[in-house]
Amino acid sequence: MIIDCAVYRDGVRETTEHDSESLDAALSRLGEDDFLWVGIGNPTADEMQRVGDSLGLHPLAVEDALEAHQRPKVEKYSDHTFISIRTVSYSDDDITTHEVNIFLGEKFLLTVRHGGPTLRNARKAAEGMIEPLSHGPTAALYAVVDSIVDHYEEVAAELETDVQEVETSVFGAERTNDSSRIYRLKRETLEFRRAVLPLREPIHRLALATAPEDARPYFRDIADHLARAAEAIDSIDHLLDNALQAHLAQLSVQQNEDMRKLTAGATIFAVPTAIAGVYGMNFEHMPELSWTYGYPMCLAVIAGLCGYIYRRFKKSGWL
Amino acid sequence: MIIDCAVYRDGVRETTEHDSESLDAALSRLGEDDFLWVGIGNPTADEMQRVGDSLGLHPLAVEDALEAHQRPKVEKYSDHTFISIRTVSYSDDDITTHEVNIFLGEKFLLTVRHGGPTLRNARKAAEGMIEPLSHGPTAALYAVVDSIVDHYEEVAAELETDVQEVETSVFGAERTNDSSRIYRLKRETLEFRRAVLPLREPIHRLALATAPEDARPYFRDIADHLARAAEAIDSIDHLLDNALQAHLAQLSVQQNEDMRKLTAGATIFAVPTAIAGVYGMNFEHMPELSWTYGYPMCLAVIAGLCGYIYRRFKKSGWL
Amino acid sequence: MIIDCAVYRDGVRETTEHDSESLDAALSRLGEDDFLWVGIGNPTADEMQRVGDSLGLHPLAVEDALEAHQRPKVEKYSDHTFISIRTVSYSDDDITTHEVNIFLGEKFLLTVRHGGPTLRNARKAAEGMIEPLSHGPTAALYAVVDSIVDHYEEVAAELETDVQEVETSVFGAERTNDSSRIYRLKRETLEFRRAVLPLREPIHRLALATAPEDARPYFRDIADHLARAAEAIDSIDHLLDNALQAHLAQLSVQQNEDMRKLTAGATIFAVPTAIAGVYGMNFEHMPELSWTYGYPMCLAVIAGLCGYIYRRFKKSGWL
Amino acid sequence: MIIDCAVYRDGVRETTEHDSESLDAALSRLGEDDFLWVGIGNPTADEMQRVGDSLGLHPLAVEDALEAHQRPKVEKYSDHTFISIRTVSYSDDDITTHEVNIFLGEKFLLTVRHGGPTLRNARKAAEGMIEPLSHGPTAALYAVVDSIVDHYEEVAAELETDVQEVETSVFGAERTNDSSRIYRLKRETLEFRRAVLPLREPIHRLALATAPEDARPYFRDIADHLARAAEAIDSIDHLLDNALQAHLAQLSVQQNEDMRKLTAGATIFAVPTAIAGVYGMNFEHMPELSWTYGYPMCLAVIAGLCGYIYRRFKKSGWL
Amino acid sequence: MIIDCAVYRDGVRETTEHDSESLDAALSRLGEDDFLWVGIGNPTADEMQRVGDSLGLHPLAVEDALEAHQRPKVEKYSDHTFISIRTVSYSDDDITTHEVNIFLGEKFLLTVRHGGPTLRNARKAAEGMIEPLSHGPTAALYAVVDSIVDHYEEVAAELETDVQEVETSVFGAERTNDSSRIYRLKRETLEFRRAVLPLREPIHRLALATAPEDARPYFRDIADHLARAAEAIDSIDHLLDNALQAHLAQLSVQQNEDMRKLTAGATIFAVPTAIAGVYGMNFEHMPELSWTYGYPMCLAVIAGLCGYIYRRFKKSGWL
Repeated sequence: MIIDCAVYRDGVRETTEHDSESLDAALSRLGEDDFLWVGIGNPTADEMQRVGDSLGLHPLAVEDALEAHQRPKVEKYSDHTFISIRTVSYSDDDITTHEVNIFLGEKFLLTVRHGGPTLRNARKAAEGMIEPLSHGPTAALYAVVDSIVDHYEEVAAELETDVQEVETSVFGAERTNDSSRIYRLKRETLEFRRAVLPLREPIHRLALATAPEDARPYFRDIADHLARAAEAIDSIDHLLDNALQAHLAQLSVQQNEDMRKLTAGATIFAVPTAIAGVYGMNFEHMPELSWTYGYPMCLAVIAGLCGYIYRRFKKSGWL
Repeated sequence: MIIDCAVYRDGVRETTEHDSESLDAALSRLGEDDFLWVGIGNPTADEMQRVGDSLGLHPLAVEDALEAHQRPKVEKYSDHTFISIRTVSYSDDDITTHEVNIFLGEKFLLTVRHGGPTLRNARKAAEGMIEPLSHGPTAALYAVVDSIVDHYEEVAAELETDVQEVETSVFGAERTNDSSRIYRLKRETLEFRRAVLPLREPIHRLALATAPEDARPYFRDIADHLARAAEAIDSIDHLLDNALQAHLAQLSVQQNEDMRKLTAGATIFAVPTAIAGVYGMNFEHMPELSWTYGYPMCLAVIAGLCGYIYRRFKKSGWL
Repeated sequence: MIIDCAVYRDGVRETTEHDSESLDAALSRLGEDDFLWVGIGNPTADEMQRVGDSLGLHPLAVEDALEAHQRPKVEKYSDHTFISIRTVSYSDDDITTHEVNIFLGEKFLLTVRHGGPTLRNARKAAEGMIEPLSHGPTAALYAVVDSIVDHYEEVAAELETDVQEVETSVFGAERTNDSSRIYRLKRETLEFRRAVLPLREPIHRLALATAPEDARPYFRDIADHLARAAEAIDSIDHLLDNALQAHLAQLSVQQNEDMRKLTAGATIFAVPTAIAGVYGMNFEHMPELSWTYGYPMCLAVIAGLCGYIYRRFKKSGWL
Repeated sequence: MIIDCAVYRDGVRETTEHDSESLDAALSRLGEDDFLWVGIGNPTADEMQRVGDSLGLHPLAVEDALEAHQRPKVEKYSDHTFISIRTVSYSDDDITTHEVNIFLGEKFLLTVRHGGPTLRNARKAAEGMIEPLSHGPTAALYAVVDSIVDHYEEVAAELETDVQEVETSVFGAERTNDSSRIYRLKRETLEFRRAVLPLREPIHRLALATAPEDARPYFRDIADHLARAAEAIDSIDHLLDNALQAHLAQLSVQQNEDMRKLTAGATIFAVPTAIAGVYGMNFEHMPELSWTYGYPMCLAVIAGLCGYIYRRFKKSGWL
Repeated sequence: MIIDCAVYRDGVRETTEHDSESLDAALSRLGEDDFLWVGIGNPTADEMQRVGDSLGLHPLAVEDALEAHQRPKVEKYSDHTFISIRTVSYSDDDITTHEVNIFLGEKFLLTVRHGGPTLRNARKAAEGMIEPLSHGPTAALYAVVDSIVDHYEEVAAELETDVQEVETSVFGAERTNDSSRIYRLKRETLEFRRAVLPLREPIHRLALATAPEDARPYFRDIADHLARAAEAIDSIDHLLDNALQAHLAQLSVQQNEDMRKLTAGATIFAVPTAIAGVYGMNFEHMPELSWTYGYPMCLAVIAGLCGYIYRRFKKSGWL
């Protein structure tokens, strides 16, 4: 479905009709410094085909744009560049990624979206940059990629917050079972990494050599954001590994504590049982049994011993 | 055993006889833009030798094609290229790989299969691409390699499903011993990796420089699929490592729980034993013993204490 | 806020007024070998804009200098270089980093500080190097970067001291729960690494090729300090990983000890209970019961057995 | 000790005397396409010196050949190449490596062996390749290196078998202590790795550029075998790491089982003890005591409770 | 303090006075092929300054040579090379490193030592190589670096011996707490690594390109020794990691054994307690109590049961 289609003349938008006939018409009307920006959402094979034919796209790239399981990448074709990139969103320990496939030609920018948030904000941002837009579609490409990549850092920040939650839980006083959450975060971090890392190298190359001279600082800026996101992901990854290890250590500490409590408790109860057992024996000649205060004395001894042991364990931290 | 042998003229198949004499004949009949596609299955040394002589293959490559323990690779010989690649299939936590050795000459494509699924589908797919086929055997090579590599991603997806099963088991409520399965998956992942990773670099090189200009986007596509499979394998690997760690943590949690139950249970039973022990002592002067309601009161005290302790442990989660 | 603004003529400082008008004036007055050193602290967008306009800075770099969440980097623009670097300070297991953004032009050095310690010392150090300063702003840049990077090694040394504290605690006789501290140190080390590592490569490049010929040894010196800091960080990282593992082992050792104590204690108490139980049985024909010295003999046997068991356990290290 | 010394003329062997005088004589007699193959075993410094002088070897290389603690390597000297390589054998979880140092000159091949298996097989294999041998000593070098490297894969396969044994033991029903064996295998794998890995890069270089044009496919073949061995070693390494982790998990599982058995057993025995304790109390008014069937009823209750608890534990898998 | 100062003419030593005036004198007297070798120990800033002025050293390098906290490195200055290297010694699980800073000029070699063993042996070794020494100071540099690097392998060998001790302890029959020693060895290995690894790359570069043509094989030899030391360090590192893991597994095995002993012991003692408890009940109608052989029969049953249980546990390895 063609969502938006506009001609930019000297950086100013002139909307056209949203069907493919007008696409051809618009293309034929493009002046020297104009370019066309077409936005498509969840296209059918047919739609994609027709747009691809109009813009002269390479069939493999068109197929890639349809499939929506691309690895993030930047691929040069003879007369256009294909960029596959992923929007990333995060909520409730869950990373969701959506694919945006972009074709950058000399006089057009085509964005193909599969699910996920619209690119309206990116377009608005781009349109706010009238001066750069008058330089052609590369500036529009920058706006789109920048708005997507900027979001990576937000997601990384949210993940970092969740890692901090996990830390608090792991090292908190309460007994918690955090391994499941740590694992889930780890899994999402891996997915995030797969959306971010493959882009680093080709964007870096764009920034250094492929992009037009005056656009390079802009793409270097994006490369920098990607590098920052990637470093954040690496940090999160390391922290989660360590949090899992630390969780294991905490569990061991807890078990040690329980073991000591068990030992202390068993000892305290063993004393009256053993003493009472002794005075429950049926020997005929047990002088203590006939003492008038034998029983209270015995109870007192038991209580005294138990109390003493209890205090000892308490002091040494076993109870 | 020669399984298939066909001349492709302008991209259209003309089957020939399946014996080696007709192979020589077919070779001599090849026109300017024709090429020969020969498929061999589990060849004997002799068969391989004869075909190799007919096509002028390098003796080392012929030997490699026979041995069927090749590392996946792409090797340039003076007048042909040797490609060793592995088909991968997966079922019941078990990766099975089979070797396909391919010779690409200027006017022929020879595929040598050792066990494993037939390449009929790949051939059909290739034959559906008449236009590219008319460009020679490189297109046929692409069809074969593509059909094999495409399957890698399916296998990776199945492995990912199994990893999810393991996760469910590890973090589920039931007590399970998952280390054996995690280990098995890890082992299969390693085997999978050894089939996939060595190919990445040479295919990448094919895509960038070695393949004919107009075939490069196609091989770039394969390189991309390989990269995706490799990233999936890396992810699976990381997840399995973490799952094993998390399993260890789960086991610790379970042991902590058992330890606490043991402690709680021992305490509950220690109370009646200790009290009964006291009233089982044989002191002459134990006033409680002669009370009419001594016994029921004693039972009540025991029951009360046990009940209180039970509730305390229940509340604090130890039982 | 402009904090300092001075013209350096032949390496000698001539302070000017601290407002942006005088900045323009100072710029226009610069002689052949003079340069301007401007220091700004926590600038507003407006201030930054004005200074950027005066010095002809690239808008992207100006934006970066404002944002204060830069990745450490060195970026070449057409007529100036942008350097983003972080001051690092450490106290109480807590790494704090502050950003310093630097613009190096042919005739000016602009430092933009966001929080963190002042750069006065760096400026003083630079002013002490009159001869190099007379060569232009690169020497001033060196002084600033050097004073920041020198501090990295101090911080690394402090971290190493803390790691040693952790080691003492882990392997000490007392039972301590060190996983939380190890984790915190790990986290801070990761943050430290993110401040240091991205700088290595661009500073290395400055040292090898980008800086003026006679300034290169100086930047090589900085590169060396960075390398040393980075190696120290790697070491700390490894040590912390190992300390966590060793802590786990220590916990296991402690649990083994507790387990043995529990076993020994339970055995010692089981003996009197079992023997007393036997003599508490109500059989009519139990000859020992009527022996005159039956009771003391029984007590002696119990004491003897308990003593013997106690000594055995003591000797074998279980108690 | 000179073990073998032969001139190869057109690929055909002509044995000469095995002393160093005849070595000089043989050298002086060498025709255009002949070459000399000398094999030395455990040489003394003197022998090595004399041979080195005859063949014009670099003193450093001669020293290296004597020392027998070389790192596997390929080193170019001005008029010969020095190759240090290790034969690897494996039995009873024990890797043994022996050094073979090889000098390749334009007209000679000198192999110096320190212990380890003879190279007779390699020589036989080489002599079977008359045609290639007529091309000079490089073919002989290939034969020697190939026969050594081929053995690497066999050793890797044996190691893999042992890893499988360990797996069976780790995941088997019996309680085994496998950490010691896993560690030993890990240690041997590391030694194996040190024999194999350093060779990869220089052999790769030989295969790509250094070797004569028509010998390159052969060295590429060796490089390939090395790569396969190296991948096998990596796999084994990973599997052993994981096996150790899995072993830890298995131990935890076993401990959990023991813990549960202890808990179950303690509970079953606690019931009769507690009940018997109650009826062992000496209260005067305990109606049950005077019931005719009090005792059997009590026994029945005890037996019933124990049986019930036993079945409950059995059912939940604790016993 | 200048320790040694000698002119080498045609490789033959001519000692001069050890003060800085004679240094200048000696420098002025140097003939075409002579060179000066100066050795300084623990210099003051002043001494270093004077020597630096005489030899025309770069101020930064002079400062580095004084500081004695250099990272091992090789730095080219315009007319001399600065090499910082560390002597490593090992005793009692303790790595000690000392810095040696070396300046190599066209006609001089200056070695600056900070603590640590003297370089007398290196000098003697160098002087024994008259022929190479006559080629200038590079040969002397080789002798010094070689004598230091050779020692690395000895230290690595000693570390390996200690690792073997740890292994014996970890897998021995005695219960030992090895984590502390493993950690200490790990820490020393890390320090060792920091002394060795940074040198690899620059020495490699010396061996390939920077050193004079005929000196290259010698520096390649050093590079090789470094590579071997580095590989040994890597191996040790891996082994220590695995030893710690294996130690954890051993601790788990021990705990399992203790747990089973506890369970077995508790069961054996529970039997007499439970049976005696039953016959200690006060029911009026307990026929066994009045049997003449009731008591001995009861004891026999208890003894029989305990013996049976004991044998069962013994057989199954729990006791």
